[in-house]
Amino acid sequence: MARLNSFHLPPESWPAPGSGRPYLLEGAEARHLLKVLRTPPGERVRLFDGRGRDGLFVLERVEGGRAVLAPESLTERPEPADQLVLALGWNKSGRRDWLLEKAVELRALGLAFWRAARSQGDPPAAPKETWTEKMIQAAKQCGNSRLPEVHVLTGGVPGLIEFARTFERCYLFWENAEASLIPRPEDLGRGRVLAVLGPEGGLEPEEAARLLEAGFTPASLGDSILRWETAALLCMGLAHLGRRNEP
Amino acid sequence: MARLNSFHLPPESWPAPGSGRPYLLEGAEARHLLKVLRTPPGERVRLFDGRGRDGLFVLERVEGGRAVLAPESLTERPEPADQLVLALGWNKSGRRDWLLEKAVELRALGLAFWRAARSQGDPPAAPKETWTEKMIQAAKQCGNSRLPEVHVLTGGVPGLIEFARTFERCYLFWENAEASLIPRPEDLGRGRVLAVLGPEGGLEPEEAARLLEAGFTPASLGDSILRWETAALLCMGLAHLGRRNEP
Repeated sequence: MARLNSFHLPPESWPAPGSGRPYLLEGAEARHLLKVLRTPPGERVRLFDGRGRDGLFVLERVEGGRAVLAPESLTERPEPADQLVLALGWNKSGRRDWLLEKAVELRALGLAFWRAARSQGDPPAAPKETWTEKMIQAAKQCGNSRLPEVHVLTGGVPGLIEFARTFERCYLFWENAEASLIPRPEDLGRGRVLAVLGPEGGLEPEEAARLLEAGFTPASLGDSILRWETAALLCMGLAHLGRRNEP
Repeated sequence: MARLNSFHLPPESWPAPGSGRPYLLEGAEARHLLKVLRTPPGERVRLFDGRGRDGLFVLERVEGGRAVLAPESLTERPEPADQLVLALGWNKSGRRDWLLEKAVELRALGLAFWRAARSQGDPPAAPKETWTEKMIQAAKQCGNSRLPEVHVLTGGVPGLIEFARTFERCYLFWENAEASLIPRPEDLGRGRVLAVLGPEGGLEPEEAARLLEAGFTPASLGDSILRWETAALLCMGLAHLGRRNEP
């Protein structure tokens, strides 16, 4: 199969199965399909919703700047059983966009930004729209039909501990930990796992102590001083390789 | 120990032990020490040569724009026994600089660029000076005293096969391989290992066939379509975690 052009149709815009309602692509995605790529009627494209659903469609016609698409085949993937979420100390990092892209490529289930003592500045109250756009672009390139869920946690360390409740295993990556596990791919790849990283500049010892007290497992990524985005990518890459194969 | 400022003194500028010759920092590094950081005489700094040698020094005096430094302690590290070299299909990638930085952080022993059939353009005849500068900056930040050796291979696939002769294990990362090993950290981290990646766009089937015929082991990084720099970083990250601890 030749590589198809992919377009994002948000979950709320997918008609209920059997409703007979048309699939309508609007806004920037429609402009890209029609004006930039000049897709002619009859051509096949891929739509995805970012929640594990995608399908092959044929462009039927154009209606008031919107593309009307007829489905050929639809695929719905259940939420995977192996779920890595990264909790990242907030940073004013120019490398955040890059990390969002890599989270899509490496199929992280989610990213949660939390405000640590050494965080520079405050995270926004809610995930930014530009973050979603970044991830949609990455998803088109790598064919992942599921976008990572992005969370902004409030309440510092207690908020993070609250967020961690639903995970099977929680790792705290902290270079100063005395006895640290160097995780294997399956440690991060199997089951519902939270991996916590500090901001650039690291965690305050008291922050780490509270998280260890709450039951987080101390972990290490080796004896080199890794930058924020390198450590995050390494966690996501390990999980990617350690995951069980799923359809 | 507070984090010291680090400066690169190229290997050929280190006086022979016992020669009594002074340690002289010149050029851009001296300007940075003296003009940008305004380091006063008596202050301690770290020098490293990029080949595993570093030391603590005290700034003695300034002599014609050069910094004269007195050694306090010197450390020389032998070449590590665990050596990962990445052979990367050449790309006109804006992410090459980023990859050079990560190679330093993750302590890859070397990077070798080779021209694949789908490479865009030709690599330069020799590694560029700007690449070294990039790696020196990264080394200052992460404290690695050894810069990766960068090679530009000629002769396409036969040149790569020739280059591979001195390695204990050679992996070929190729998404189309039928039976592929997903490497464990120790596969890439232990011994002298070459990991071959194609350019963005991948390898031609004939290129892969010739490398497999030459004895390279087919390997995979999972079922996601990873970008060039993501795949490279993941190989280097695995090796970093799988390496034996060395002094």
